[in-house]
Amino acid sequence: MTAVQQLPADVEEFVSSSTTCAVATTRSDGTIRHSITYFLLDQERIVVSTLATRGKARDIERSGKASVCVFGHAAPFPSVTIEGSARVVTDPAEVGRVTRALGRRTLGDKAPSPSDEQIVAAGRVVLEITPERCYGASYLPTP
Amino acid sequence: MTAVQQLPADVEEFVSSSTTCAVATTRSDGTIRHSITYFLLDQERIVVSTLATRGKARDIERSGKASVCVFGHAAPFPSVTIEGSARVVTDPAEVGRVTRALGRRTLGDKAPSPSDEQIVAAGRVVLEITPERCYGASYLPTP
Repeated sequence: MTAVQQLPADVEEFVSSSTTCAVATTRSDGTIRHSITYFLLDQERIVVSTLATRGKARDIERSGKASVCVFGHAAPFPSVTIEGSARVVTDPAEVGRVTRALGRRTLGDKAPSPSDEQIVAAGRVVLEITPERCYGASYLPTP
Repeated sequence: MTAVQQLPADVEEFVSSSTTCAVATTRSDGTIRHSITYFLLDQERIVVSTLATRGKARDIERSGKASVCVFGHAAPFPSVTIEGSARVVTDPAEVGRVTRALGRRTLGDKAPSPSDEQIVAAGRVVLEITPERCYGASYLPTP
């Protein structure tokens, strides 16, 4: 595993309290793929549950890199960008754990609680981004 | 000027009503630069006012490309990504017009109204992105 770049305290607090981010990866032709997704800060890494067939999973499989921009939802729109090495996790226990945690985070008590096997059978994987560089922190709330 | 890719009606409505987006550009070393910024949809182009010295301006000057992800601020977090050719506009009248329009959009009546000359003297330029591809539209409100 790549060593984690320790996030500054205000960044860690902001990222931990956020639920959505923009993820950017590089396609095989060098252009940028870009989308909004739910995420968790999990043991100092950014984790996202997605389908193995999604472009961002294929980009990370190939390039080993991703950039994540985490933002707030009201003026002055705090934000910070984290970039680093990235990998596609397929271990069923880990994919199950992260996918259920994201479900609880986004849906609360209404979240279903499928088994690891059901989650993997649905084609899910986890994208794990290890922070190596953090920049552009703007208007972060004081922790 | 590059021909504009006409945006679907629901995308145009959503993008017109949004004020913030994530902009991603490619650095000279091939990695992704990524930040949140205010923008306007102006005559079917995405325009951003920034400083000429900012990395995203230099990336666009070099690469002629950018990717913009526009997102909503409440669940289910509607979003759409627009990518296309991009250029740095330095014409004082255009930089002044866009910068003042963005100021009014984000600050309302409190926005200052500097002259074109003052805006250019402050180092401002406009980044203009001409949509060539639009994808990943999710949860857009029905117009």
